[in-house]
Amino acid sequence: MPSLRVALAQVNSTVGDIPGNAAAVRHWSRTAAEVGAQLVAFPEMMLTGYPIEDLVFRDSFVASSQAALRTLAADLAGDGLGDVAVIVGYVDADGPAPTSSAAVPGSGRRDASALLFGGEIVATYFKHHLPNYGVFDEDRYFEPGDSLTVVRLGGVDVALTVCEDLWQAGGPFAAAGRAGVGLVVNINASPYELNKDDLRLPLVQRRAAEAGATIAYVNMVGGQDELVFDGDSMIVTAGGELLTRAGQFTSELLIHDLDVPAADPTPNVTDAQGDDGMGIRRVTVEAPPRPLTDGPAVGGIADRVTDEAEIWSALTLGLHDYVEKNGFRSVVLGVSGGIDSAVVAAIAVDALGPQRVVGVSMPSGYSSGHSKDDAADLAKRTGLDYRSEPIQPMVDAFLANMSLSGLAVENLQARVRGVILMALSNQEGHLVLTTGNKSELAVGYSTLYGDSVGGYNPLKDVPKTMVWRLAKWRNADAANRGGEPPIPENSIVKPPSAELRPGQVDSDSLPDYDLLDAILIGYIDGDQGRDDLIAAGHDAALVDRVLRMVDLAEYKRRQSAPGTKISSKAFGRDRRLPITNRFREGV
Amino acid sequence: MPSLRVALAQVNSTVGDIPGNAAAVRHWSRTAAEVGAQLVAFPEMMLTGYPIEDLVFRDSFVASSQAALRTLAADLAGDGLGDVAVIVGYVDADGPAPTSSAAVPGSGRRDASALLFGGEIVATYFKHHLPNYGVFDEDRYFEPGDSLTVVRLGGVDVALTVCEDLWQAGGPFAAAGRAGVGLVVNINASPYELNKDDLRLPLVQRRAAEAGATIAYVNMVGGQDELVFDGDSMIVTAGGELLTRAGQFTSELLIHDLDVPAADPTPNVTDAQGDDGMGIRRVTVEAPPRPLTDGPAVGGIADRVTDEAEIWSALTLGLHDYVEKNGFRSVVLGVSGGIDSAVVAAIAVDALGPQRVVGVSMPSGYSSGHSKDDAADLAKRTGLDYRSEPIQPMVDAFLANMSLSGLAVENLQARVRGVILMALSNQEGHLVLTTGNKSELAVGYSTLYGDSVGGYNPLKDVPKTMVWRLAKWRNADAANRGGEPPIPENSIVKPPSAELRPGQVDSDSLPDYDLLDAILIGYIDGDQGRDDLIAAGHDAALVDRVLRMVDLAEYKRRQSAPGTKISSKAFGRDRRLPITNRFREGV
Repeated sequence: MPSLRVALAQVNSTVGDIPGNAAAVRHWSRTAAEVGAQLVAFPEMMLTGYPIEDLVFRDSFVASSQAALRTLAADLAGDGLGDVAVIVGYVDADGPAPTSSAAVPGSGRRDASALLFGGEIVATYFKHHLPNYGVFDEDRYFEPGDSLTVVRLGGVDVALTVCEDLWQAGGPFAAAGRAGVGLVVNINASPYELNKDDLRLPLVQRRAAEAGATIAYVNMVGGQDELVFDGDSMIVTAGGELLTRAGQFTSELLIHDLDVPAADPTPNVTDAQGDDGMGIRRVTVEAPPRPLTDGPAVGGIADRVTDEAEIWSALTLGLHDYVEKNGFRSVVLGVSGGIDSAVVAAIAVDALGPQRVVGVSMPSGYSSGHSKDDAADLAKRTGLDYRSEPIQPMVDAFLANMSLSGLAVENLQARVRGVILMALSNQEGHLVLTTGNKSELAVGYSTLYGDSVGGYNPLKDVPKTMVWRLAKWRNADAANRGGEPPIPENSIVKPPSAELRPGQVDSDSLPDYDLLDAILIGYIDGDQGRDDLIAAGHDAALVDRVLRMVDLAEYKRRQSAPGTKISSKAFGRDRRLPITNRFREGV
Repeated sequence: MPSLRVALAQVNSTVGDIPGNAAAVRHWSRTAAEVGAQLVAFPEMMLTGYPIEDLVFRDSFVASSQAALRTLAADLAGDGLGDVAVIVGYVDADGPAPTSSAAVPGSGRRDASALLFGGEIVATYFKHHLPNYGVFDEDRYFEPGDSLTVVRLGGVDVALTVCEDLWQAGGPFAAAGRAGVGLVVNINASPYELNKDDLRLPLVQRRAAEAGATIAYVNMVGGQDELVFDGDSMIVTAGGELLTRAGQFTSELLIHDLDVPAADPTPNVTDAQGDDGMGIRRVTVEAPPRPLTDGPAVGGIADRVTDEAEIWSALTLGLHDYVEKNGFRSVVLGVSGGIDSAVVAAIAVDALGPQRVVGVSMPSGYSSGHSKDDAADLAKRTGLDYRSEPIQPMVDAFLANMSLSGLAVENLQARVRGVILMALSNQEGHLVLTTGNKSELAVGYSTLYGDSVGGYNPLKDVPKTMVWRLAKWRNADAANRGGEPPIPENSIVKPPSAELRPGQVDSDSLPDYDLLDAILIGYIDGDQGRDDLIAAGHDAALVDRVLRMVDLAEYKRRQSAPGTKISSKAFGRDRRLPITNRFREGV
């Protein structure tokens, strides 16, 4: 049984930064080769970043991806790595871009994997199963491949697959079984969701049984706009044994020696299209890969962590990469003494370091003494750059010139704070962080153009009850990390308040957060209707109240104001581009 | 050859307002029957509105659609219309909602058409071709049907089809040809694009030839969030003759007597699946439709109009329906004396009447005398509710308490204006209109949370050069409409300026708008890259400058801040709901 030293490159990639991503492939391939790897696998769309959204419609972008792949093959050989097989995801095309209803949607654009060896692109594979649910829109963008690529390398048959191919039964993994391969390499850009890692291992085991082969699963790591990729790469045998598994949210090489069955010299299968809907295309690499050096290489199995630890890592990495990939030097946020801004400040300091985080206390006449104290305490614990800008003089200028009352006055205070943060952003170059949690956003308990001002919101998808859990977890984890617990105990235990009128607390306007979050999760995450929620045990009147708030709040979450579409591509619905796109035309 | 009086109901529908939409079907069916119609056809998804986006994932929503259809059939009979065939679009389901990667995307949800007669749902059809490009995401939401429904009604074979079925060759229209039908009814929710009407007629002619049958094409009319449906319903014979055609942006019944070939009593075709991928399902309505009364009924052919007239209608209808469907009583906007706010004010007054439009002049120290005069002149011409709120006292309060300079001071002025408009919105209940045109938005020539504040932007998809054309056209059209030309001549002819610093004009920062718009249209609408644009004759340095501005501005168009996703459904990318949704759980 031949042995193959495999390196899974669980690394970061930036949408549009094709030269930077190609350089990362060269860097990590060299590092892997230094410890004797014969095959190095990189994530899905490593060369272009993922998701590229409407960039795929631009011919110049696709041409850049194709050209970069050719250059990369040559550069790897130039680096002395011509005898290492490098598998890398990129975007290919064998047809025109779909730009109208006349063309078949996605025609000719391919979510592709290539095997590079000896300075050449030896083989390519086009993803077969295209996900089109949740965050995925791949039916818009890509044409499915219908042929499994099997590469004979050093006497072993290796099949190439991409991401969703693993999540659907039939197709490439069934074809791999029919083809009798020894190893299936599955490259991924699989976004994080809480506890998704609990799904992945049994899924890989099921597919390994279907293919009758070992699976090497490699996933991207890093933040890209609203997505964060968590890695969790692994190798699982045909029998379902987990050989090695990387951590979550870590950039690393997972290196392991595999015993892979020798390829049958004359495989007794038909390579025509099978019941699984796939043809089989075979490619042989005549030259042997570099010989195995000292070994064996045995990868470890990373421990699983708690929900809070997993989420904290996701949020810090997501913020870090948003800031870095967009080229910001620093962030600014309002610190009120409350739990949300305290948790965001702690995330920002963990992600960027205290010297890149500015916290601004903006007290009003309604701000309590303890709020100011708690904000100052947070600053002292975290070491962030702390400022104070009392808002009353600006609020008074509006009140003196307009006749405002009630909610208009409450919102005015939040909006003056938004203007102050944006002025600091313009003057000093910080990215403004906003701090509204998912529960608040869902029911519209925030001020449009007020506390919702900002370029990034770490808590956008975090329910209020989880904000408290995160705060307690992070403070306790200070014992492992060193340093003081960052979040003032008082911010955790006091009743939440917007402090926009005397004595105001959240519970004046909102149900208890335990009850609220349970309904929100059913309604939003679960698509449950009113009757489902009541059947699940929620109080009917409360369900009606919450659903009404959510439906009314829907428009508050909109980005730029909607407007009537009159052209073939309006902004918004029609034009979907990643924010942290680094593709530069003509570079 | 039997004669059939057909009524195409080119009418409005509201997403989620199932009871209201059902009432509209009864109203228009009664009106059509009063002039003797035997068959009345309503648009795609008439009962639910279109597009319903993620509402389709909620079982309670789909169940409401199905129940409303059954009730509607009975109610029409109760209205004395049991002998009129009513074709209506709705949402059906014959499988579970797709809520995870484990389920097949779109499984079981159907974009459906039903024929109601005699108090019953006589026949249903499931849309075959699902568009998944541009504004369409139907692969996410629906499962394609694979069987053409042919209804024998009064001795005539009528085939049911839906929207995109018409835009793709093969499939239902080919099957209709094989089935030998006399009439194909194609129901649509086809969003407006400039000059799309020029594509529709030849397309309908091509499909009529393919089916060898007359096509009755009915389209929705009205605004829904960012979409506006323009109607343009028509009837075209197998030979390509246009018999009748409705106007654009008008709610109307298009009524016409058709001579339709009698159905073959024993059709000599196989109804099994054909080369076109469709089976054929035949249903016979035994009872005859109501007898023809006096006639003949002959529909007219509406004139085509200029681009400016078409766009003006789209923008006024889009704004009107956004305001009405969201339940706002009035709108407020800043009027600067410039062209953009003048055109938005004129659109708003045309859409809502002057008594529902508040215009606020918010001069600063840098506002020129002519700006204030032009704003007042606009108010006088249009009759809108005019106010003045000088911003200097509020701006001074910020400047006295913060150290700001340069761009931060420019943006501060725009943000103080945004706070004033939102305060008026909170105090008096107006929807704030924002007025940035597509060219400005594309290059980021606007202030985030400043002039971009607002719930709706009529010019969001209108390039600056088109804003000027619209202004001139609307003023000239005053001769046809009566009333004064609404837009001050001075607002049209003066050089555009943001007036945020002394002597500032747009041309300090931006290329000439003719050049800019040409590049933007190529880059944004056409997905052209740098080299394509230069090959098209644009100056290379200018192309580089504009593309860099557009790429940098991309994030400005996001209003709610992105944030890292950690759950199965975050807001934004994961959760796609119409803003003007009127669906109420449990009602």
